[in-house]
Formats: sequence, C-alpha cells, structure tokens
Amino acid sequence: MTTPSTGPTAPATAEPPAIDGAAIGLALATYRDAAPLVQCLTNIVVANATANLVLASGASPAMVDNEQEAGLFAGVASGVLVNLGTPNSLTAKAMTAAVTGCRDAGTPWVLDPVAAGGLPWRTGLALDLLALHPPTIIRGNASEIAGLAGGAGGKGVDATDDPAGVLDTARELAGRFGCVVAVSGAIDHLTDGERLLKIANGDPIMTRVTGVGCALGALMAGFAGVVDDPLLAAAAATGLLTVAADRAVHTAGLPGSFAVALVDQVASVQPAELGGSIRLV
Amino acid sequence: MTTPSTGPTAPATAEPPAIDGAAIGLALATYRDAAPLVQCLTNIVVANATANLVLASGASPAMVDNEQEAGLFAGVASGVLVNLGTPNSLTAKAMTAAVTGCRDAGTPWVLDPVAAGGLPWRTGLALDLLALHPPTIIRGNASEIAGLAGGAGGKGVDATDDPAGVLDTARELAGRFGCVVAVSGAIDHLTDGERLLKIANGDPIMTRVTGVGCALGALMAGFAGVVDDPLLAAAAATGLLTVAADRAVHTAGLPGSFAVALVDQVASVQPAELGGSIRLV
Amino acid sequence: MTTPSTGPTAPATAEPPAIDGAAIGLALATYRDAAPLVQCLTNIVVANATANLVLASGASPAMVDNEQEAGLFAGVASGVLVNLGTPNSLTAKAMTAAVTGCRDAGTPWVLDPVAAGGLPWRTGLALDLLALHPPTIIRGNASEIAGLAGGAGGKGVDATDDPAGVLDTARELAGRFGCVVAVSGAIDHLTDGERLLKIANGDPIMTRVTGVGCALGALMAGFAGVVDDPLLAAAAATGLLTVAADRAVHTAGLPGSFAVALVDQVASVQPAELGGSIRLV
Repeated sequence: MTTPSTGPTAPATAEPPAIDGAAIGLALATYRDAAPLVQCLTNIVVANATANLVLASGASPAMVDNEQEAGLFAGVASGVLVNLGTPNSLTAKAMTAAVTGCRDAGTPWVLDPVAAGGLPWRTGLALDLLALHPPTIIRGNASEIAGLAGGAGGKGVDATDDPAGVLDTARELAGRFGCVVAVSGAIDHLTDGERLLKIANGDPIMTRVTGVGCALGALMAGFAGVVDDPLLAAAAATGLLTVAADRAVHTAGLPGSFAVALVDQVASVQPAELGGSIRLV
Repeated sequence: MTTPSTGPTAPATAEPPAIDGAAIGLALATYRDAAPLVQCLTNIVVANATANLVLASGASPAMVDNEQEAGLFAGVASGVLVNLGTPNSLTAKAMTAAVTGCRDAGTPWVLDPVAAGGLPWRTGLALDLLALHPPTIIRGNASEIAGLAGGAGGKGVDATDDPAGVLDTARELAGRFGCVVAVSGAIDHLTDGERLLKIANGDPIMTRVTGVGCALGALMAGFAGVVDDPLLAAAAATGLLTVAADRAVHTAGLPGSFAVALVDQVASVQPAELGGSIRLV
Repeated sequence: MTTPSTGPTAPATAEPPAIDGAAIGLALATYRDAAPLVQCLTNIVVANATANLVLASGASPAMVDNEQEAGLFAGVASGVLVNLGTPNSLTAKAMTAAVTGCRDAGTPWVLDPVAAGGLPWRTGLALDLLALHPPTIIRGNASEIAGLAGGAGGKGVDATDDPAGVLDTARELAGRFGCVVAVSGAIDHLTDGERLLKIANGDPIMTRVTGVGCALGALMAGFAGVVDDPLLAAAAATGLLTVAADRAVHTAGLPGSFAVALVDQVASVQPAELGGSIRLV
C-alpha cells in the first residue's frame, strides 16, 4: 500500500497523486483515526439516517442547523454538509450562516442541491450559497447537477438520469467554482474539472431507500475534513457507501432490511476491504 | 381478473363499479406502472418512514413543505398529503399554499387531521384547509374523525376507538365535503357518504409503530393520483399496507423488527396477492 | 417483591424508600399499567426513534412542539421532555410555552441539554427554561452536565466523558434546582443531590446509534408521570433502556441491527426481568 502524498514513487510535481484503491483505503483509515466532526444542515426526512450512517462510518454527526449557532459551529466542525431537501425560511438563514462560518474558518463544505432546477426558490438559495463561498464538493444526481447549472431539473428528488450525460456540465461547474462535482448514479462520476473518477459499485436498491444520497453528502463532508485532496475525499465517501451497499444487498434484498444492513456494513467495512473492493472504471 | 371500468358485466349507469379484490389488485398494478409523485407535507416524526414506505410501494415521495415551493409543486405532483402531526407557523403556511396549488391544478389531496379535536389550533387549521378546497380523502382514526367534526378528540395521537362508532360522523363529513372519509381501526371503515367499505386486514402491532397511519395517508395520495374513484384509491392504499402488515407480523412480532419487515412487505406484495388477500367484510 | 411505599417494612420517616431492583421492576409494572402520555419537544434527528421507543416501552408519545399548543398539551400530558438537540427560533418559543404549562399544571418535565456549554445560544435557552420552572430531571452526558453548570462543553453531541468526573457538579445542580440529575455514561450516575444511584448496565454500542440518550429523556418523562420519586423514575427509565440494550447486543452487534433490536427488547422486557437484571453498583 502506498501513501497518497509521500514515498519514493511520489511525483515531483504539484499534481495530486493518483487516486486508486490503496489511496481510498488509506483515506478511510485516516478518517477512522481522526473521527471527524460533521455538521449537517439537512432535511427532516433523512436527518436520522444521516446521523446513523455518519456514526457508523466512524465520525461524529452534529445537526446544528439554527441561525444562531450554525456559523459558530462551522468554525469548529471538520466539515459541513448543506442539504437542500426540505429548506424553509428559518433553515435557509442557518445555511447562510454556516457557509459564512466555513468561509471565515476555512472549513470544507459540501452542497447537496436536492431537486435543484425544478424548484426556483431552492435553486436560488443554492446559487446564493455558491456565490457566498464556493463549496469543496457539490454532490447530486444527474438531474440536480443539470438543474443547478441552469438546465431543467428532474421529477422530484429521485432521479435515474445517467451521470455520463451531464459530465460536461459537471466539469464546467467544477471549473467555475473550483470544487469537485460528484454525480451519483449507476456509475458515479466525480470530477474536479480536470481529473475524472468513475466508480461502479453500488446497487439500484440504493435509490429505493430514502436518504442514501443525502448521507453520502455527509460522509463527503467528513472525508473532506481529514483528506487534503477533495476528489479523493469524494471518492472515498462514495466508495465506502457503495461497497457497503454491495455487501448489504447480499443479505438484504428488500428496502427495509437493506437500510438496516447498510448501516451495519458501513460500520464494518475495513480500509483494506474498501481498497480491494472499489471498482474504478 | 376483471377491469373496474370495462367489460360485458359493467353496469350501464354512471355508478362507480364495484370495489372488490380484483379492482384493488388492478389499482396496485396501475400504481406501480404510473409510479406517482407524492408530495408530503408531514411531520418530523414520520417523514423518514413515510418516504421509505412510499418508495417501497413503488411511488416517488417529495417532501416539499415550505411556503415558497409547496403550491408550485402541488401543480406537478400526482397527489398531495397534508398531515397535521407537528404543524407550526411555518409549515401551516406551506400547507395553505399546497392546498391552494391543489385547487388551482386539480391535484387530489389527502388530509390527515392528527389529534384533531383535542388541540384547538390545529383543528382550526384543518377546518381552514377544508374550507379552502375540499380534500379527496380525509384519513384518521375514530377520535380524529370525531374531533374534526366537532366532537371531543382522543388522548394524543394514538387512539383505539372503534371506527364503527363514528360511521355516521364519517358519512356526514364525506357528504359535506364531497370526499372519502377513511377511518382506520381494527376494521377500517371507508365511505364516500354513500358506499361503505370495511377492510379487516392488519394487526394491532401497527399501532405500536409510529407513523403507520401517517404513511397510509401518503399512499392514499399516491393512489388518488392514478385511480379515478377516490374510494377505490383509499381502499387500495389501505389494502396494500394492511396486507403487507399481515405478512410482516408473521416473521416479526416485535415493533422494531415489524417496522423493517413492513417496508419489505410493502415492496414485495404483488397486485394479484393483494387482490387475493384483502378481506372486505 | 416489596412495594416501594407500603408494607410492614416501610420506614416510618418521610424518607423515600430504598431504590432496588424490586422497586424498579414495580415502577415498570406501574408504567405499563398507566401507559403515560409523553409530550416530546425534541429534535428532528431522533423524533422517530424516540416515538418508537416510547411506544415500545408501553407509553404514548405526542410530539406537540408548536408555540400555539405546547403549553395547553403540557397540562394534559403525564410528563414532558424538552430536548435541545436542534432548537430554533420557533421551537424555542414552544419549549417556553411547554415549561410554562408544566409550571401551571404541575406536570413533571425533563430537560435534555444537548451540547450545552459548547453552544452559547442553546445554553442560554436551557438556563432560561431552568429559571422559568425547575425540571423534575436533567439528563445528559458528562460534558453536557458540565457545560450546563458553566464549564466547557464537549465535542458536539456525542461525548464519552466519565460521569464520575462531574458528580460534584451534578449534585450541585440537583441541589440548586431541586431536581434529579442523571448523567449517562458507561456507569450511569443519578443523584437528587443527596442520594446517588449508579447503574452499570448498557453497552458502548449505545453511543454509536443516534438518539438513544434522547429517547432515555423521553422515557424518564414518562416514568416521572407515574412514579412519585423522581430518582426512581430516572432509574427505572435508565434500567429499562440499558437492560434492553444488554439483551439487544447479544443478537445484534452492529449499529443498524442494534437499533432495531433495541426497540424489540424495550417492548419485551418484563418488570421482573428488569428488576432482576439491573446492576446497581
């Protein structure tokens, strides 16, 4: 196993090192050692599942989502998730405070623009947050990425569009905001505008349980707090969740049981197993 | 299997066709094909369970519950649920916007008047929504139906009163608002003011898991979006959930396991199984 | 088995009777008979898990958490939980209304000062509620109890500090407010300022599932509604949850499965089993 940043084979340039299974496994080991504190401003549907998946991953969740405290807490959190699943007037103010706190403290943050494009108010909120301080990672499905970039959004929050179809849009967004854009789908596409990673783990049942994608954003915020390369952070989070899903679906093929098994597997996947199971295609 | 609206035995009048197991099975087949988009304005306790049960049923949930977007989204949703489990000043405005959107777009909507009667503020909110635009279906337990109609409410949100005891009230409400009233209980009583359906599936453990009734409202909103007859929609949703419960309790007799198994069974019940298992008494 | 308040061996003084396994078992029997109505003003992360654990315990949860109704409902509830997990401007007003309602009606209430100390706004809210009307029980982990008393708070909402380290602080708080302070940890420390109970049941996995501590506060509110001695109420709730956890972890060692098994076990632990399994050390 090679470390991502040192060793005799490390390149002499400022280029980030290659992202392979070994690097992703090492990222999980780093994450488990560091136990990052993940602040989540998320929606009422998935708050519980997100907290449990973050805990299972080895990190600590903290749903500090009020206007009075969100900015202060963003200064001590390892990473912050802003998820637009069920925004309202109150939580929108908290999101603004949190992103301001990230800007002032240099805390990495992840934007999950749920249903962007189809709903003008939240799309405007997402754009305002992007303008306030660029995120470290934008995570969404294909229709949400398209919607955020100005295209038509999808049907509600569940989309099955192909990430490959919005790859140019994802690259453009990544370049514009200097961030990683992670497009979830059958094959997850992750790009920082230059590099592209495609991850082929996971199972369609993940779309039949609410909040799996939302939890992925929280895991990305945690990894971004302990790994320097945001693309590696996004890939490690994606790998952890999708490899766990591959294992969970073996024993639990229906959605209720799968949701339970997914938490169990996120807790039990070990770094070497992750590195050996992730399928970079 | 006969279809509900055609065939040589269909009545010549404008009367809705008979609702039997075959019609209910066919309604589920229609629902699975259409995959309705169900907008849920619901409470913080059950939002996750509702989304997962809606997904398991074959529909797409979308919890668009802010004032800014709720009306707009009601124009594109297949059906809308308004559940008064944990209303507050903000969500009350969103509910008003959603019902206005339903009125303008002709979208069916379901009112679940949680704890109506016992709590004056939310009872007033429910009456305001009813006055704004009559729902397609009102769903509650016996004490909530009585409370909505002006009688005394029950003890909190969990009630075990007998639906038969409020049947006259249910019929009166149905006639007044031109809607279906579905009273949940050991034997579910569903009426459109003229017809009466009684469904004897289900198990008392359903009352020991939070949100089963709330999810039923969401399923009714989905069926109402794809089935013309609201009484059939309410019956098919009730049948799907209670037949699934009958199957779930066979393998999971304690409430934590039952909640998981219920999601699994909602996902796996097939139309013909539903039609053959529903007990219309 | 002896009853806690009568019988030939009961002390002649006004001192509360001894709290032993028999008394705790009897408290559960009383609770199951009474089926208390537990009003919960709690956070969006744990509302579902709390409701399900309260239902499993044999009580009825009601999450009446809006400003308009919280005070009125506190007048009819058996006990009230105020949990500061995700407070905001709206729910803070509801909490004030609920505590006012408890004061006026004499309803017992439990304060769970989640993340107190580390976050000034919610710490101020907790102190305001304490000043408005002292709670029956304050429940938190060691860092929260220290934070509420003016010390430094912990890292987010998950803490593993040792309850023994804040015992003096807990006793001081209990004396100041005339309440029980229950400090959760590997060995739970419960005190009313004079008496001290230490309970050694439970498993570290309880800290890897979100909301277990939050649900404990709700159970305490329920027991406080049906048992005269608040220390016994806090002990019985702690015993029920931790004995159930001991049983759950035998069959479910990973956090997703454990959360499900915990609900099952809370529902199935019988009074005599509780009395025989609780480890008072």
